[in-house]
Amino acid sequence: MTKDLKIFQEKLSERLLELDLEKEPKELYEPIHYTLSLGGKRMRPILAFMGYLCSKEDWEKIIDPALAIELFHNFTLIHDDIMDEAPLRRGEPTVYKKWNKDIAILSGDVLMVMAYDLLMRADYSDFKYLLRLFNQCAIEVCEGQQLDMNFEEKASVSEADYIEMIRLKTAVLLGFSLELGGLLGGMTKEESQHLRDFGVNIGIGFQLKDDLLDVYGDAQKFGKQVGGDIIANKKTLLLIKAIELAEGKQKLDLHNLLADKDIDPVKKVREMKAIYADLNIEAIAEKAMNDHFEKGFDQLNDLEKREYNLQPLREFTEALIARDH
Amino acid sequence: MTKDLKIFQEKLSERLLELDLEKEPKELYEPIHYTLSLGGKRMRPILAFMGYLCSKEDWEKIIDPALAIELFHNFTLIHDDIMDEAPLRRGEPTVYKKWNKDIAILSGDVLMVMAYDLLMRADYSDFKYLLRLFNQCAIEVCEGQQLDMNFEEKASVSEADYIEMIRLKTAVLLGFSLELGGLLGGMTKEESQHLRDFGVNIGIGFQLKDDLLDVYGDAQKFGKQVGGDIIANKKTLLLIKAIELAEGKQKLDLHNLLADKDIDPVKKVREMKAIYADLNIEAIAEKAMNDHFEKGFDQLNDLEKREYNLQPLREFTEALIARDH
Repeated sequence: MTKDLKIFQEKLSERLLELDLEKEPKELYEPIHYTLSLGGKRMRPILAFMGYLCSKEDWEKIIDPALAIELFHNFTLIHDDIMDEAPLRRGEPTVYKKWNKDIAILSGDVLMVMAYDLLMRADYSDFKYLLRLFNQCAIEVCEGQQLDMNFEEKASVSEADYIEMIRLKTAVLLGFSLELGGLLGGMTKEESQHLRDFGVNIGIGFQLKDDLLDVYGDAQKFGKQVGGDIIANKKTLLLIKAIELAEGKQKLDLHNLLADKDIDPVKKVREMKAIYADLNIEAIAEKAMNDHFEKGFDQLNDLEKREYNLQPLREFTEALIARDH
Repeated sequence: MTKDLKIFQEKLSERLLELDLEKEPKELYEPIHYTLSLGGKRMRPILAFMGYLCSKEDWEKIIDPALAIELFHNFTLIHDDIMDEAPLRRGEPTVYKKWNKDIAILSGDVLMVMAYDLLMRADYSDFKYLLRLFNQCAIEVCEGQQLDMNFEEKASVSEADYIEMIRLKTAVLLGFSLELGGLLGGMTKEESQHLRDFGVNIGIGFQLKDDLLDVYGDAQKFGKQVGGDIIANKKTLLLIKAIELAEGKQKLDLHNLLADKDIDPVKKVREMKAIYADLNIEAIAEKAMNDHFEKGFDQLNDLEKREYNLQPLREFTEALIARDH
């Protein structure tokens, strides 16, 4: 499987290099080339392959529509990085930092149109159906980003609000990737919807896993600062549950920790983790994560009965679930 | 004709109000509703009707795809206003001023996806062809905006560069509007390309007319400050030709006028107009404008022979050409 992944990634990168990006005005196309060259796991197009592999083997045939999702994803990253004032992406300066905000807005816009152009290369009888799904998903991703920004300003966010936000911001695109692959492989629309629902639930689980790894991951394997979310007061499910469950003196301590802007970050992480430990937050978040993974896999039962080959998809997903970084 | 225009505009506004914009998160949908309610001439969807009316009468049938262009146009305005730091649009605060840059980026993105969604409602056998034209046009509009920003930094811009910039930034979308209408009305692809080429040339002419009106228009009719382009050192065709043609002392005077940041605006406009008068700039720009109008109308000859009804299109265009504000 790891070997296959490498082949997928290489083919995807190869095909990305074939896109005509040596165009004028270079202020517009250089940032696009830069962004697409930064690499990444290419998880979304690979999920499209996984959806396709349930029925067919010649996954190379859907590289272009699979890459449409990668381009769309990168468009959202370029725009999100402006809004989040993020200096780095995959260890390199973000477009908005390396060039400027105007160029990031406009090259993002072009990337989005290019995504539509690649999606058009899908060989599917009801193309408007694909487009409708893609549009729906694109709008939901934008809604998720807006909710995420709203949450930063909000004093309290519920568990349900948080799950809905990550569903929109990250999970629906994973769901669409699988659904697209399923449809292009020849599954019916209804069957492919099971793939989508699988992907959405797994996607929510992945985000919860990211939240957990940010606090409990191995710093060396994780590749970024452990505790970053705690330091930034990020309203992850862990913090949301802690705010919900803390009482008495602990509640006071928690609010002081969140309000103290001068606190040493190491101390802040240590003290927050102590509160999380008292409130059993890790187990609560793990349960929420596993519930979504389970709900996801339930969606595959129906497909299993219809003799699709779900092995590659299962293996790929289980490897992602087992990752510790 | 004026009566018809009003009917078109009313129907378009009516249909825009039927779009479902009472959605959450409201931070995303309120700016879209606001933008679409600001009005405007709705020139692009009306051009689509004009293309359609060459063959058929029931223009109401293409309201949705025609509005796709209006939504796309408004998406570009919302993003351009961030880049241009424009405080006002149609006399009201821009989205980026009324809300903020992040909301302007994201609500613009959603508007663009909504444009694709409306385009999908086109009843046309080769939908992918429409989509390809739309994508091409969308990318060109972005390229035009980038060129426009580049020109601000450039010491010298040639006449050809300027014409190419306005072709991309504003004219191709007018061309696409007509082409879309032509195709939906039943014209062949080749015939509709004539409509596009007509629209592109007329569109370049319109922009040159705007540049002329900004200097020579009647302040009261024009509705905005006459000489705004001169005050802002905007590289319109008028200034480009003046820089190209000025010699000796006049050249020095011109460069001093451009460099003097403390000059009284009224004096600057008066002195620049004196230079323009000496160099015959008004006539030169008018000739460039009329050349493009003529080149545009030439495209209609072929269609005329095929017994399309070009009367509404001709009347509409001639009214726009004759406008003095």
